[in-house]
Amino acid sequence: MPGIKDFSRIIEKELSQTALVKDPEGLYLPIKYILDIGGKRIRPSLLLFACYIFSGKWENAIPAAKGIELFHNFTLLHDDIMDNSGMRRNKETVHVKWDVNTAILSGDAMSIMANMYVSKSPESTMLSVLECFNKTALEVCEGQQYDMEFESRTDVSVEEYIRMIELKTSVLLAASLKIGAIIGDASEEEIESIYEYGRQIGIGFQLQDDFLDTFGDEEIFGKKIGGDITENKKTFLLIKSLELADDKTRQYLISLLNDNKLNQKDKVRKVSEIYVRTGAKEECQKLIQTCHNKAMQHLKLLNIREEHKNELRAFSSSLTERKY
Amino acid sequence: MPGIKDFSRIIEKELSQTALVKDPEGLYLPIKYILDIGGKRIRPSLLLFACYIFSGKWENAIPAAKGIELFHNFTLLHDDIMDNSGMRRNKETVHVKWDVNTAILSGDAMSIMANMYVSKSPESTMLSVLECFNKTALEVCEGQQYDMEFESRTDVSVEEYIRMIELKTSVLLAASLKIGAIIGDASEEEIESIYEYGRQIGIGFQLQDDFLDTFGDEEIFGKKIGGDITENKKTFLLIKSLELADDKTRQYLISLLNDNKLNQKDKVRKVSEIYVRTGAKEECQKLIQTCHNKAMQHLKLLNIREEHKNELRAFSSSLTERKY
Repeated sequence: MPGIKDFSRIIEKELSQTALVKDPEGLYLPIKYILDIGGKRIRPSLLLFACYIFSGKWENAIPAAKGIELFHNFTLLHDDIMDNSGMRRNKETVHVKWDVNTAILSGDAMSIMANMYVSKSPESTMLSVLECFNKTALEVCEGQQYDMEFESRTDVSVEEYIRMIELKTSVLLAASLKIGAIIGDASEEEIESIYEYGRQIGIGFQLQDDFLDTFGDEEIFGKKIGGDITENKKTFLLIKSLELADDKTRQYLISLLNDNKLNQKDKVRKVSEIYVRTGAKEECQKLIQTCHNKAMQHLKLLNIREEHKNELRAFSSSLTERKY
Repeated sequence: MPGIKDFSRIIEKELSQTALVKDPEGLYLPIKYILDIGGKRIRPSLLLFACYIFSGKWENAIPAAKGIELFHNFTLLHDDIMDNSGMRRNKETVHVKWDVNTAILSGDAMSIMANMYVSKSPESTMLSVLECFNKTALEVCEGQQYDMEFESRTDVSVEEYIRMIELKTSVLLAASLKIGAIIGDASEEEIESIYEYGRQIGIGFQLQDDFLDTFGDEEIFGKKIGGDITENKKTFLLIKSLELADDKTRQYLISLLNDNKLNQKDKVRKVSEIYVRTGAKEECQKLIQTCHNKAMQHLKLLNIREEHKNELRAFSSSLTERKY
């Protein structure tokens, strides 16, 4: 029985065999470049797996899976410009290696190519697939907009933050599963359940990312711990700490955020301590567990083989228990 | 009988009645803003007219018409960033009024919304409509890429230039007509003929634009004459002049292009004279006429009422004979 990881290998092979580069090369080379940077191909793997567990015929979902991965990489390409990120997975980002105009235009082309692939889904499922894909794509833009707006706001609530990561990260995972299920001719109830499963693991995934950035093991996590704290990034931990702290601790936390003279190592240590003291760390872990539990509830409603449920159960655990 | 201009009013009303702005407003307000800047709504009007002349039922094509106009304005939004244009129709461009990040993200959202609307076309025509739309959208990106690459090249041929304006400008006009014809259940031959009609008038339209920028009447044209010359923009007139000129004239023309001390008025006058002397001006007018004639040939093949042919004939004339 193929598992999610097997589909990751399948989509990797499919992508490598797709002729992406034609004239004008200046437009298409950056698209191949960012796809070649890699990644875990989580979204297309979930899409293919979902199609497989409902119908066995995962081949029908290959174009949509490619489309989802192209769309995801298009968002990375444009996000890197907006966030002014110079590196991605130890490689120069497209707007650094080429220039901003190239990154804008190649991203635009990539978004259109994503549509082309998604439109190659089986005709009988096309309307539902496109509706889900376009709705989700727009939500991802809304999530990025909120993320940018939050940078300059000091009053972001936990609810707003969760809604933002839901839009920016989670709905695309959920939509991948949903599109796979649609192409796999699942029932409406099952399509909805697997979407909700994906939405919960997506939120948990992002919260775990926030958690590891502060409390991860640098050796295992693979990147510097405390990046979010040094950048004053509004994460669950910071927002929840500001909410839970008594007045004195809140003032102290805000003073640490605004203290430009404090060395970064001390800042990370002191802020992390507050995250522990206020209980935000614990709340974060609890919420991750809640997301996992909710995902498991939705999983129960699926009328699929037990071994497939186990695979989805293990996948959720791997995301929420991961150390890297 | 409704003409193309009537459909322009219809689409204008449709756009004004569409609720484009929702949360987050920072994402959607710029979309409403650029649509409100206006324009002649040529593409959606042609789309509706094409649907009308083949089926009478232009209402079926309203979503696709909105989608085409959204897509066109998305390309303007991103092109303005890439070309560093500060003004459009006497209004600040989005990346100036807001910022570059907003212009990138709102453009991305606009492109997705275009897809949403196009996907609301009648189900029986959906596959063909989407195939045409996506193919064309990618071609427009290719055209913009060539246009940017030509800026730094000195050896652009007339053929390359025509291919570039075909991709950047012409195919979207042609696709608008084609999509209208598809939704209007036209035959394959007619769909192809109206596409070719659109392709020719699109090329003629852009050549006329080049022509008027140098030889137009400032009062009527409504913008400063000679902008392309002062910016050393590679237009048909410049490329053809370099091709037709004898060695001495070519060297002189190149020296004028590189002469940074020459005042702009003198430069425009001297370069325009060369365009006349080499015969490039005449060649440009001839080619515009050729495009019109070819468009008329394709028009003949359409099995539509004579008055509708007259409307399309007059429309082509209005584009290629216009003075503004």
